[in-house]
Parts: sequence; structure tokens; C-alpha cells
Amino acid sequence: MPDKIRQKLHSTCATGMVATMKNIDTLLHARWVIPVDNKSRYLEDHCIAIDEDKIIDILPGNQAAEKYSASVNRSYPQHALIPGLINSHTHAAMNLFRGLADDLSLMDWLENHIWPAEAQHVNEAFVHTGTELAIAEMIRSGTTCFNDMYFFPDITARVAADVGMRASVGLILIDFPTVWANNSDEYIDKGLAVFDNYKGHDLIKTAFAPHAPYTVSDEPLKHIRTLADELELNIHMHIHETAFEVSEAKKNNGIRPLTRLYELGLLTPALQAVHMTQLDEDEIPLLASAGSHVIHCPESNMKLASGICPVNQLLDAGVNVALGTDSSSSNNDLDMFGEMRTAALLAKISTMDATAVSAEQVLRMATINGARALGIDEITGSLEIGKFADIVAVNFDTIETVPVYDPVSHLVYCSSREHVTDVWIAGKQRLTDRVLNTIDESRLKQDCNRISENIRISDRS
Amino acid sequence: MPDKIRQKLHSTCATGMVATMKNIDTLLHARWVIPVDNKSRYLEDHCIAIDEDKIIDILPGNQAAEKYSASVNRSYPQHALIPGLINSHTHAAMNLFRGLADDLSLMDWLENHIWPAEAQHVNEAFVHTGTELAIAEMIRSGTTCFNDMYFFPDITARVAADVGMRASVGLILIDFPTVWANNSDEYIDKGLAVFDNYKGHDLIKTAFAPHAPYTVSDEPLKHIRTLADELELNIHMHIHETAFEVSEAKKNNGIRPLTRLYELGLLTPALQAVHMTQLDEDEIPLLASAGSHVIHCPESNMKLASGICPVNQLLDAGVNVALGTDSSSSNNDLDMFGEMRTAALLAKISTMDATAVSAEQVLRMATINGARALGIDEITGSLEIGKFADIVAVNFDTIETVPVYDPVSHLVYCSSREHVTDVWIAGKQRLTDRVLNTIDESRLKQDCNRISENIRISDRS
Repeated sequence: MPDKIRQKLHSTCATGMVATMKNIDTLLHARWVIPVDNKSRYLEDHCIAIDEDKIIDILPGNQAAEKYSASVNRSYPQHALIPGLINSHTHAAMNLFRGLADDLSLMDWLENHIWPAEAQHVNEAFVHTGTELAIAEMIRSGTTCFNDMYFFPDITARVAADVGMRASVGLILIDFPTVWANNSDEYIDKGLAVFDNYKGHDLIKTAFAPHAPYTVSDEPLKHIRTLADELELNIHMHIHETAFEVSEAKKNNGIRPLTRLYELGLLTPALQAVHMTQLDEDEIPLLASAGSHVIHCPESNMKLASGICPVNQLLDAGVNVALGTDSSSSNNDLDMFGEMRTAALLAKISTMDATAVSAEQVLRMATINGARALGIDEITGSLEIGKFADIVAVNFDTIETVPVYDPVSHLVYCSSREHVTDVWIAGKQRLTDRVLNTIDESRLKQDCNRISENIRISDRS
Repeated sequence: MPDKIRQKLHSTCATGMVATMKNIDTLLHARWVIPVDNKSRYLEDHCIAIDEDKIIDILPGNQAAEKYSASVNRSYPQHALIPGLINSHTHAAMNLFRGLADDLSLMDWLENHIWPAEAQHVNEAFVHTGTELAIAEMIRSGTTCFNDMYFFPDITARVAADVGMRASVGLILIDFPTVWANNSDEYIDKGLAVFDNYKGHDLIKTAFAPHAPYTVSDEPLKHIRTLADELELNIHMHIHETAFEVSEAKKNNGIRPLTRLYELGLLTPALQAVHMTQLDEDEIPLLASAGSHVIHCPESNMKLASGICPVNQLLDAGVNVALGTDSSSSNNDLDMFGEMRTAALLAKISTMDATAVSAEQVLRMATINGARALGIDEITGSLEIGKFADIVAVNFDTIETVPVYDPVSHLVYCSSREHVTDVWIAGKQRLTDRVLNTIDESRLKQDCNRISENIRISDRS
């Protein structure tokens, strides 16, 4: 007997109120629901009702069975359901370079390893396989949306759409020629083609992604600014990653990069300023009044010794701060659970205040703040009625996660990516008991090993 | 047909050299072996031969089948075999308090949560269950030895011995009465009884564990110093955890705690100085010339905003630096993989040098340096012939761990505790395909949840 009918019959016998039952697709019943809304830190023994791709209700467990008849019923007696995590800055395809070069200074790492490897190996097949590996890793670690910047954004968008992953795909722009484009006009034209292709897509949106102030000159930035206004696109950019970047710019242009971007009219609510480890006392209120977003990448900033983004001061000033892993080449993973924990620990030690940046605050950075930065907070980033069902189930019934006192701080300080069991994106289950539903892990690992074998040989030579 | 005989027959047919074959217990064949000795960063396609509780050979894979006939043959075609990790500072039983109080300043955390909870809940049953939970977590995350400090060390030692875990159990001493003892004589007497009980034990050793300079006065410290010399016991102590500790001591005694310990004769190779976030320029050479050991606990120091141990300077000065998680109440896990990664990242950002404290250095801190600090480097801490077979298999064939370029940095920056599949302690397999062999996980989780229910109620009241 199909579940939906059985459920209905059972309900008829118990309550005699068939007329009030609503047929829906999925009902998830969990010990804890952490909605990341403005009402409750967490709910106990609640259900999330999903129909088609949206959350249509969140209600106490004992009321759900009387109100809904679901095709799929899943029970999570020791799990927390949380909004899908949003990785607000990465270069997905670079997963194929992870671990290629560690314990090196930024310039040695870039000039002697990453740039030569990119020049030699990055092509459509590389971006396809690298992005698929990154998405596999992200879904398995509870991430349901990523904000990307890399060559061949058309491939990145296609892989994400095919797999059923939510993404904001960056339309990269850089002053020098690469395998993707030869000059700024070509970067922009090819980017706009990707934009056109995915206009109105449920999962994929696009954003301009000028690489950094030191690699993109004024003219293309002005062009992007005009186009971004016109097309209502966000702008995703590395800014103030290191003190060296700022001092070089001052030497060359007489002003700090953020001042230059302000003068170019780029400081708007559309701007996603990635890294921002260097901020003087005027720049924090400037970002706040502009409504620009800061994307904090603590592990990459630590590993490359870039600097520390003053998250606590930014949050206090009202700046929206989201969280990203950066690429796997400087991290070396895309694990937002680890990133949340590091963000909290780094904030505490860098301010010498153990209360700075709480578990609740980093969870917001990894969910709703990310959605806000990407301009998708109306449709995702929290578990609320009417939003897409981007949901992650985290198992707290393991040797690593008992006992549980506060499920919110537990999520950040105790549980890890391996406790993610199930993931839904827009109502579709993409991970079931830790197995990916739309990616063949074994075939993917073979593809990765085949490509990396060539990279290994050329890096050593 | 038993494996040993079949192996022998097969070997006879193939080579006709039965006389040269040696019967042994276990042969592990791995893609990578990372010995943490002074000869090689890693070996490819090698075998580790184990007989009884010791490593008797490490040799190329193609030679092993001709030399040894093993009762148990295990093949790890995509794994790295590494020495069991050594958690050089923890309070195992406190696992039952993990997540009880987060995002709080040290004194609020201690005075309003941890100390009241300890006064009310710590007893023999608590220490038994909490220690078992901690050991379960440690084995599952590749730790084969821990250095403990807590009440009821007799229980801690018994649980570790029963489960087959290696430990150095701290004989705690503190100036005020607790549920374990009423005065320093009683602490010492009860401690010595534990020492007597485990003298000569293969897995368990004991060490004096005076809590901290600010909680133990001069007389008991002198007494311990004499006894430690006489009995050849180490001394495990929190020292210079915070700037507040140092400034208070200067105010009260006119000298810094480390100076006071030096004057009391405690700075010797027997001393394990835990935390050491405060070190002036004279103190690093003082520790180096004394041959004392420093135990670095980066995650606890970050979470409680205690300070940063200058690991790089200590290593440069020749001080032996080991790694610990501290308790799960201030971390909130006992994950040495995470701790290695954090130690490397924190060293880089705090010195603004991406080459500071390499993957190789933190791996040494988590293995051989820990063994040295605990005085057991002759018998464990690396994969070398003649040492106990304390071995961990880490799976690199996962979505999170492909591709592999350098297995050593991969271990630290990319793989995590969940990639640990198998663990041997003194030649006995204690984890098989992630399942514990000497602990019933399901029963243990029930025990933990029963105890934590009471703690939760009293913490809220």
C-alpha cells in the first residue's frame, strides 16, 4: 500500500477528520529543528512539511500527523535539522589542486605552484571534474549553495544544475588573458552569455566576479558596475586579502583599494567583499553605510598568513558578514562545519574575548547571512515557511556528539561534517544516509585520480 | 584451513624457501607508511610486520610475502599507516560536560558552570563513564595514548587498562578538598596507591599532576618533587595558561609562576608544562636548558581566549613541544586530527608566516614529541622496529581526500578523524572498519545520556 494512502487511512481511523488532511510530498520529524530565523534558537520535537520544492509548514511533531499526509515520512529522533549551509566564497574546480603545495608563503605558492599548474592543466574537463568533486564534498558536508569564482563558469553552472546544487556562479574578469578569455570585453561577453543561459533558473544565479583590485583596472570595473546595475547582478571580488595588497596599492595609486572601489561606485549592497583582513577605522562604517557584504574565509587567511578579518567589529557595526572556505587549495577542504568552528575560535583569540562571535552568530554567518550576501535570502538561508526546502540533517547520536546540552552550540563546537546524514536542496533529497543521489562517487574518484596524476608529474618536474 | 598454514603452503609452492619464512601475527600492507622517524617522510607500498605486541619489521611490499607468513593479512591500497596519535593533555572524564557551557569567559565558565557541576556530579560512576566515552572518541579518531589529569585516577587507569588503551594517568593534587581527597597528604597517598597498582603495566603509567601554580602551594610541590625523583615519575601541570594567572602571581608572590617552579626545582626533563601561552624572552631558553616539555592546546586556548603558545619560537629553541586537546568541555572534542590542523593554522597566522610550523612538525608534535614528553618515546610515538605496534590506518580514498599529492601534508590539512578506519594498540586491533572492538557503543551512549540528563537539569536550575 503506498505510504500516502496508508497514512490517510491511519489518520481517518484516529481522528475521523479526513477532510482537513493535506497531501504533501515529505514530512521530516526531528528531535531538534534549528530554523535560524528571528523567533527561536531551536525547536524540540518538530516537523518540517515539504511540498514540491518549498517548506510549507514547521509545526510540533504531535500536530503534524493530524494535519499532513506525506508520500515520504522520515524520522530523525536524535538529529538536528538545520538550513543548508552556504559557502559564500570558493573556487570549486580547484579541488583538484588541493594539497599540491602547502606550508608555503602566498607568493611562492601562487607563482611556483598554483599559477603554473593552472596554466598547464585548467580546461573544460578539469573544471567539470573539479567542480563535481567540490559539489560532492560540499553536499556531503551539509552545504547546499556555493558562491563561485573560476574560469569556465559555463561549466561550473552546468555541473551544479545537473547535480541539483544551488550556486551563484561568478563571471570572472581579470586584466590578463587566460584559457577562458583574452581581454576584458571577451570576459564580459562570455560572462553575459552564461548570465543569459541561466536567467530565471531555480538553482543557478550569476554574479560578476572581477578577481581583485590589483588584477582588474578601472575601465572594466566601471563597465561591470553599469552592467551590474542594469541587470541587477551582484559583484563578487577579493578585496584587502593582505597588508601587502593594500600597501602596494597605496604606493601605486596613492589610495587604498577600498577607497578606489568607493570612488568607482562599487560600494553598494551588490558588493561581496571577500577576505577584508585589512580595515581601518573609517572603512568599517563605510561598508556599513554602503550595505556591502563581507565574506570571511578564516582558514584560508590563517593558512596563507594573510591576516584576520575583524568580524566582531563588523558585526557590531551592522555589516552583514558571511562565511566561505575559499578553495581547497588553500584550506584544504570545503567543510563549512570546520569553517564555522574556526571562525568562532579565531574571533575569540584575536579579540582575547571568549564571548566574541558566538556559535549562534557563526551559524547565521554560514546560513542566512550568506543568503543575504548572495541576494537570495528571500528564498533560502533559513528554515521558514515559503522558502525552498534546503535542509540538512545532522546526527547527534554518535560517540563524538553525546551528550547534548545546547543543540546550537553543539552544532558548531562538537559536531562535524561526518555527522551530516541527509541533505535536501529545493525539496529534492541529494544525500541519503551519507550517500550522494546524483553523483557516482566511485566514478568521480577515478576521474579525479586520472587528472591529478598528470598534475603531480608536472608539479615535480 | 587456518590462515597461517595456508600462507605457509602457498609460500612453499611459490618459492620453496619454507625455512626462511617467519610466522608472525599480523602483516599490514599499505599504499603509504608515514613512520615519523628520522629517516623518511613517507614510504610507498610498504608492509609493517607485527608479532605479539611489537613492530618487528617495516619493508617493501614485494619483499614481505617472501619473508613473513602472517596469521592476519590486511591490505590498505589507498590508506596511510601512521603512528597512533598521542593526546598529551586532557581530562578524559569531562567528556560528560562537553557543550555544557560555551561562549563564556573563563571565570564565568568555571565558577558558574564547570565547578558547580563537578561539585554536584563527579563521582566514581561519572569518571568511569566519562573516561570510557573519551577513550571511545579518542580511538575512533586515531589516538592511542592520552595524558590525563582528573579526580579518581584509579578509575581512569582501570577503564583504560580494561579497554586496552595506552595512558599516562595523572595523580592529581590541589590545595583544596574535593570528592577525591581532603588534603595534600591524602592526595599524595591515594596517588601513590594508584602508582603502586600499575607499576610495570604495559599500557598504563602514572605521573604526578599538581593542578597549577595558583592552586598548589610550595610544600606539596616540594614533596612531589622529592617523590618524583625517587620514583622516576613525570610531573604534569597547567602553567601560564593566561596572562591573568601570571599577573596575579606577580602581585601575590613578586615572581612569575615559572620562576617560582624553577626555584622549587621543578624545571627538569620530568616536567610537562601545559599551555604556556605566556613566555618572556628569558623563559624559552630556561625551558630549553632544563629539558622540560611544553604541551600546546591550541583549540582550548582559542576557545577560552587564554592566549597563544609561541610554538615556533619554542621549537626553534629546541624545546620539545607536544600537542593536547585539553578536555572536551573547552574544545569540544578530543580530535587530534583537528588539533594538528589548528596548531599549524594558528602558528601561521600568529607569526604572519605561512611556512611556520609545517604539517610535518605538527605530526611530530602529535606523535613522537608526545611520547618524549610522557617519557615513553623508547616504546611508542613512531613506527620503528622494536616499538609497540601503536598504529592507525587512515583512508585517503574518499570524496574528501582525493586527490593525494603529499601524504604528510594531506594527513594534516585534508584528512580528518572520520577517515581513521583501523587502530592497533600494542599489536591488538581496537578499531576495525570504524567499529570499536572493546567498547559497546550503544550501551555507552545510553550510560552517557542517563548521566547527562541529571547534569542538564541541575545546570539550568
